[in-house]
Amino acid sequence: MDSLKCSPVVTICGMEKTNIAIVGLGTVGTGVARLLLDCGDRTARHAGRTMWLRKAVVRDLEKARQRIDLPEGVLTDSLDEVINDPEITVVAQLIGGLEPARSIMLRLMESGKDIVTANKALLAEHGPELFDRARQLGRSIAFEASVAGGIPIIANISQCLSANQLESLEGILNGTSNFIVSQMDEFGTEYAEVVAEAQRLGYAEADPTMDVDGTDAAQKLAILAHLAFGATVDWSTIPRVGIDGLDPVDLRYARQLGYRIKLLAVATLGEEGLELSVAPTLLKIGTPLAEVRNAFNAIRAVGDAVGPVFYHGLGAGQMPTASAVIADLIDTAVGRTKLTFQTLEYFSSENPARAIQRDTANIRGRFYLRLSVANDPGTLAAIANVLSRNSISIASVIQHESESTLDPNSQRPDRELVPLVIMTHEASEGTAVAATAELEGLDAVEGSVTRLRVKG
Amino acid sequence: MDSLKCSPVVTICGMEKTNIAIVGLGTVGTGVARLLLDCGDRTARHAGRTMWLRKAVVRDLEKARQRIDLPEGVLTDSLDEVINDPEITVVAQLIGGLEPARSIMLRLMESGKDIVTANKALLAEHGPELFDRARQLGRSIAFEASVAGGIPIIANISQCLSANQLESLEGILNGTSNFIVSQMDEFGTEYAEVVAEAQRLGYAEADPTMDVDGTDAAQKLAILAHLAFGATVDWSTIPRVGIDGLDPVDLRYARQLGYRIKLLAVATLGEEGLELSVAPTLLKIGTPLAEVRNAFNAIRAVGDAVGPVFYHGLGAGQMPTASAVIADLIDTAVGRTKLTFQTLEYFSSENPARAIQRDTANIRGRFYLRLSVANDPGTLAAIANVLSRNSISIASVIQHESESTLDPNSQRPDRELVPLVIMTHEASEGTAVAATAELEGLDAVEGSVTRLRVKG
Repeated sequence: MDSLKCSPVVTICGMEKTNIAIVGLGTVGTGVARLLLDCGDRTARHAGRTMWLRKAVVRDLEKARQRIDLPEGVLTDSLDEVINDPEITVVAQLIGGLEPARSIMLRLMESGKDIVTANKALLAEHGPELFDRARQLGRSIAFEASVAGGIPIIANISQCLSANQLESLEGILNGTSNFIVSQMDEFGTEYAEVVAEAQRLGYAEADPTMDVDGTDAAQKLAILAHLAFGATVDWSTIPRVGIDGLDPVDLRYARQLGYRIKLLAVATLGEEGLELSVAPTLLKIGTPLAEVRNAFNAIRAVGDAVGPVFYHGLGAGQMPTASAVIADLIDTAVGRTKLTFQTLEYFSSENPARAIQRDTANIRGRFYLRLSVANDPGTLAAIANVLSRNSISIASVIQHESESTLDPNSQRPDRELVPLVIMTHEASEGTAVAATAELEGLDAVEGSVTRLRVKG
Repeated sequence: MDSLKCSPVVTICGMEKTNIAIVGLGTVGTGVARLLLDCGDRTARHAGRTMWLRKAVVRDLEKARQRIDLPEGVLTDSLDEVINDPEITVVAQLIGGLEPARSIMLRLMESGKDIVTANKALLAEHGPELFDRARQLGRSIAFEASVAGGIPIIANISQCLSANQLESLEGILNGTSNFIVSQMDEFGTEYAEVVAEAQRLGYAEADPTMDVDGTDAAQKLAILAHLAFGATVDWSTIPRVGIDGLDPVDLRYARQLGYRIKLLAVATLGEEGLELSVAPTLLKIGTPLAEVRNAFNAIRAVGDAVGPVFYHGLGAGQMPTASAVIADLIDTAVGRTKLTFQTLEYFSSENPARAIQRDTANIRGRFYLRLSVANDPGTLAAIANVLSRNSISIASVIQHESESTLDPNSQRPDRELVPLVIMTHEASEGTAVAATAELEGLDAVEGSVTRLRVKG
């Protein structure tokens, strides 16, 4: 914040004024308040009117006072002070979770306020209800901050790339996961250790489950899939694997093969429908998505006219997210949001879905398989036979003689085990699943097989 | 074009219609016409109304008919058919050069049309006149396609990043130059040979001067500097060096040092003003801008709230540029352009410039110097002394014994010359210029010194 170069808010004679309220003064809310209060010159310049912070509603007045020093009369713990103030026309609704966020948003819209929100879980869960209600009431909901933090991907997909039928979106949409995987990759640290470090640094919540198990990325992907493909997706139906089970050894083998592993959210439109998935994926070193480090997010969109467009920026954090919220507040104050909202009919329950989610079993791709196998003659032949029977051809194999070990937990603690890594050529997900199960049934294979997707 | 998945334009009962004209059916104009005609479903969905191509004005009807098959009555060689048709409200003005493009744009606006254009030279040269006139007339000019082709950088800077004071923009803005430099770098080919190849492939015009001498990049940078920093810049005052003098040997040495050379356009806002320049620049291998290949463009913007945001996409070509034009046509039809145009007062001659262009002599940076020097004792000492006297400290030196040569064109054809490459620590541009001149005056130095900037 100290680096912001701006002047405090001023009222300029004859300049229109938009009265704004913030509901929820957490990390992002505080950032938004600061930008509104300290940088009134720039928001006025971009909005053509003064962006005036009139109320900030919090649950705990004392906690809020410790975070930020607001002008007299702005801070309140009464939502009614916003609801009953007709001069407040735009509200940045920045509380997380589903309830009371949902009810508050409905009440605000019913009292005539346009909404700006960062709450992707709420939109992923209750999008159709909230957006239908907004349309009935003639209100708008702007949600740039709900996906990819500071990267303006919502505006880019909804407006800037509107000449295109998008063909695919590939994104690193969860900064926490990417931070953890980057650290594991760079320093060879175990998962649990990096999570603890991420929590110390503020990159992971006390309970990071939603971030590391792929839920957060799936919710964001559901929103993007709606904007890009007109799909109406229940985020919980998106096949997802998190990074919580990732073993550093896979990062190491991937690197030997020329890849990095990232938690990748994918939406691909094919002849047979829309492929959606969130999973740790091997990406070729040197390609832009593979090189996204730490808490950064990135999205690669491919349109049939524009070709590939790549976006990279901070996917979370106070000021990047506040940047997106302020852009939405300005768009709403200027009137652009209303036009976009009326035109695009986001999440309308009346519009039929334009794309149908495809069964992942039919999706084709390449796979990385890691097995722990008996160091015996015939092992590789047995494995190759299983793959061959399933019509999966092998692109490359790594087997290091030196890493042979005994596994005291094995049912056969006397036999030597070696890791075996196989990169396959293209196969369907269904076939890969079946072959994996067959491999796990082989006498030569110890325990379960690690299977990861490969892109590029 | 064959890959476009869309349905032809349809008029839907009760749906509003925006009548559009295209003036100029060159490469981009043809692409725009095709998207309007063949993909009416998607433009209608994004615009909430039918985007109807009513007229396409060309100079040569026969040539146009060979390029594209238009519906009866659309093609004309009379601009008056557009001027005198009050139902046409938006015009994609896609003719290049300054005149008659300027006069035609004025006439179109005077007859009540909003304008969409891709003509960066026209805006860089006559921006204030055209935009002031548009405001007087209550019209708008949209110009997304004028910079970086398919990358929607205009909307992103003007709207999506509006919470930020931008601190810097660094861009690869000329696809032709980047194609040429990438090929020289990858294959070690001489400049002239790659230019011929680029012309064969359609990446360079018959006369590529404006692309390769930095003019095109400087004009685009002037537009971006206005949007991002409120600077009113005469593009011709931006210090610029093209790639037309680039020697493959410098690409090779740069690579040995861990860098690639790119034609980089830079705008940096500092305490003392705005630094603008276009020059071949060494960029650290592995950083996103260094890895931009062939005809791609990229821009790295740093905002004080959002941090760094990186954009990468196709900077030219028929469909990427048409994608930007169509997005502008939709924004204009929906009404967003008008709101933005009224609010931001682009290129207003009444608004004082918010940033002053800084004298490049004061700008600090690192430099790459390549000298051809006598293979004598004392040479390195003499050179090091000059740099030391100018307070320039040396970061690294490359001198290969094996490359010693005789130069038959030298005034002293008997002495052995060796190439010497020096990377400096930070110094001001003015100091580097003075030191270079002093070095060129040394007896031990043959000919002129190659001096390039280094970033990152």
